[in-house]
Amino acid sequence: MAKYLTYKQAGVSIEANDEMVEKINDSLQSTFSPRVMPLKNGFAGLFRLDYDEKLFKKNYKNPVLVACTDGVGSKVQLASKAKKYDTVGIDLVAMSVNDMLVQGAEPLFFLDYVAVHELLPDNIAEMVKGVAAGCRLANCALLGGETAEMPDTYAKDDFDMAGFAVGVVERKRIITGKTIQIGDVILGLASSGLHSNGYALARSICFKNNNFKMTDKFDELDGKELGEVLLEPTRIYVKPVVKLLSQYKVKQVVHGMAHITGSGLPGNIPRVLPKGCDAVLQKDSWEMPKIFPFLQKMGPVEENEMFDVFNMGIGYVLIVAEDFADSIAHKLTQYGEKVYRIGRICSGSRRVIIK
Amino acid sequence: MAKYLTYKQAGVSIEANDEMVEKINDSLQSTFSPRVMPLKNGFAGLFRLDYDEKLFKKNYKNPVLVACTDGVGSKVQLASKAKKYDTVGIDLVAMSVNDMLVQGAEPLFFLDYVAVHELLPDNIAEMVKGVAAGCRLANCALLGGETAEMPDTYAKDDFDMAGFAVGVVERKRIITGKTIQIGDVILGLASSGLHSNGYALARSICFKNNNFKMTDKFDELDGKELGEVLLEPTRIYVKPVVKLLSQYKVKQVVHGMAHITGSGLPGNIPRVLPKGCDAVLQKDSWEMPKIFPFLQKMGPVEENEMFDVFNMGIGYVLIVAEDFADSIAHKLTQYGEKVYRIGRICSGSRRVIIK
Repeated sequence: MAKYLTYKQAGVSIEANDEMVEKINDSLQSTFSPRVMPLKNGFAGLFRLDYDEKLFKKNYKNPVLVACTDGVGSKVQLASKAKKYDTVGIDLVAMSVNDMLVQGAEPLFFLDYVAVHELLPDNIAEMVKGVAAGCRLANCALLGGETAEMPDTYAKDDFDMAGFAVGVVERKRIITGKTIQIGDVILGLASSGLHSNGYALARSICFKNNNFKMTDKFDELDGKELGEVLLEPTRIYVKPVVKLLSQYKVKQVVHGMAHITGSGLPGNIPRVLPKGCDAVLQKDSWEMPKIFPFLQKMGPVEENEMFDVFNMGIGYVLIVAEDFADSIAHKLTQYGEKVYRIGRICSGSRRVIIK
Repeated sequence: MAKYLTYKQAGVSIEANDEMVEKINDSLQSTFSPRVMPLKNGFAGLFRLDYDEKLFKKNYKNPVLVACTDGVGSKVQLASKAKKYDTVGIDLVAMSVNDMLVQGAEPLFFLDYVAVHELLPDNIAEMVKGVAAGCRLANCALLGGETAEMPDTYAKDDFDMAGFAVGVVERKRIITGKTIQIGDVILGLASSGLHSNGYALARSICFKNNNFKMTDKFDELDGKELGEVLLEPTRIYVKPVVKLLSQYKVKQVVHGMAHITGSGLPGNIPRVLPKGCDAVLQKDSWEMPKIFPFLQKMGPVEENEMFDVFNMGIGYVLIVAEDFADSIAHKLTQYGEKVYRIGRICSGSRRVIIK
């Protein structure tokens, strides 16, 4: 909450600034829980671990804070190209909160850093609106942020964003992957598209090799505009996964999870695999969003390279005890996810084998 | 700790990457306390609120988390110009931890986001070395970070950094300024130079209006190189101020504090002033580092503008009960600070009056 009140120093006109601060404050407020302590003109955001109900002390005996930071890579360039600023904030939140979720954590709050060539109040307000939307999807408070106007670092219309998320997990319930064993089932949750990875390659294919426009429509993309498909926000898996984990407080049936970010399924699943285990995936076991075969064809790009760069339709992976796989899949489906049984853990050496 | 292990995806050569990861890990490790939980290849950084000694539970009955984010503005441009990458990380930490200190908080951990045109392992290692140095000065753990290679957003040699700090304060001991009263004494702690604000103006004066070089030496700057003076790292006030506050756990004699960042003394002190109070400062009461009169003359810049843009030699302000002013000043001097009695709180309307 702190820094949004200091925009004046960047030289924005008082009226425009007041308008922006008001808009941003609405966005911030929309994410606040009773744990957020108001502090007008404060230098920092304040977040109570507990409030009067003592829910926190009840739920957490030995709390461990979990922190993540990430950007959205060159997806910001596409947002700028399309002059569509209200969704990359969702991507920004998604990248950090999906990461912390992997360790079993529940997000508490988020802060953003936005750096621009020129501080245009409407654009900033749109960006923060997206961040706030992401925070609501992730059940966390947007506790503060900073906006920097740096005309010599960022070219006209260019910007960058960084996000920071803090969450909490009970020490005994941290998920690391160490309990993964041969025979475990690998469940994949559908991605909404490219999420926030592989945009260097995607942009190169679409705009350098092929000279497509953001507004071009393609039959292979169900007649949608290319820009719309490329800017589809990253899916946030917090609510279904936190709810699932809360159902298994005694039995630890979720042995490991992975957020499928840069370097795809082959790069991210091994981060949680213990020694002696491979993840064997059946690539025909899930429905691939059309953007992936589209990019593969338009490149052209080799299939291996596609899997190494993009999520290929699976945004999040859970590695679970075989006996509970069906009921977990059923629950996650009930919570609104598209769930695929995409593979098994086999004897091996921490590799991902895609068949 | 998480993201530093995923550099490979950015296309850095394996050897260079391994070298960088090793260098960065040394920097990270140098900041770790027993509260940091190791998690190899993890998706997030883990920080235990308590460890086996239960110090945290002893010290905090009702802990409030405090979070800040900030960048270092266009000081990064100067670091790039001078090809000196190992100090802006200190600035980055300083900007956030000095902010949280204002609320009475003790920093716990820090994360950084570094975005570059091209991922050069040595440069990144230098940057992170600076961040780690800042974290050690602030007694906090460098829990993780993200490095993004974005050749289309950042020009050759350009980069940007964002920092994120989380700390803790006991709820009853949050300092907001609301207890500030007429007659309180304003103590100023010396800054080390420009800190991380006003660089748009400073760069304009030095490199646009005057065509100085970073290596130019000036008698007015004690014969030092301009670049050296401009890149002097921001002073981190955490250790002396946290130590001071720990001496007054019952009596709340520190009524308010302010970190003097963008918009200077006139812009930052009012953020903590209650209704009915002015801060009246005697500008001849402290020693002004030579860079300020130098910039003022080389501009030329009006004195009011100087005070509105730069810290003018005071990096941090404490507003304290009159009866304790001398002993507080004495303690802070003992802890290594240059302390000036720079003014008083008078009846007024939340303005700063510089006489």
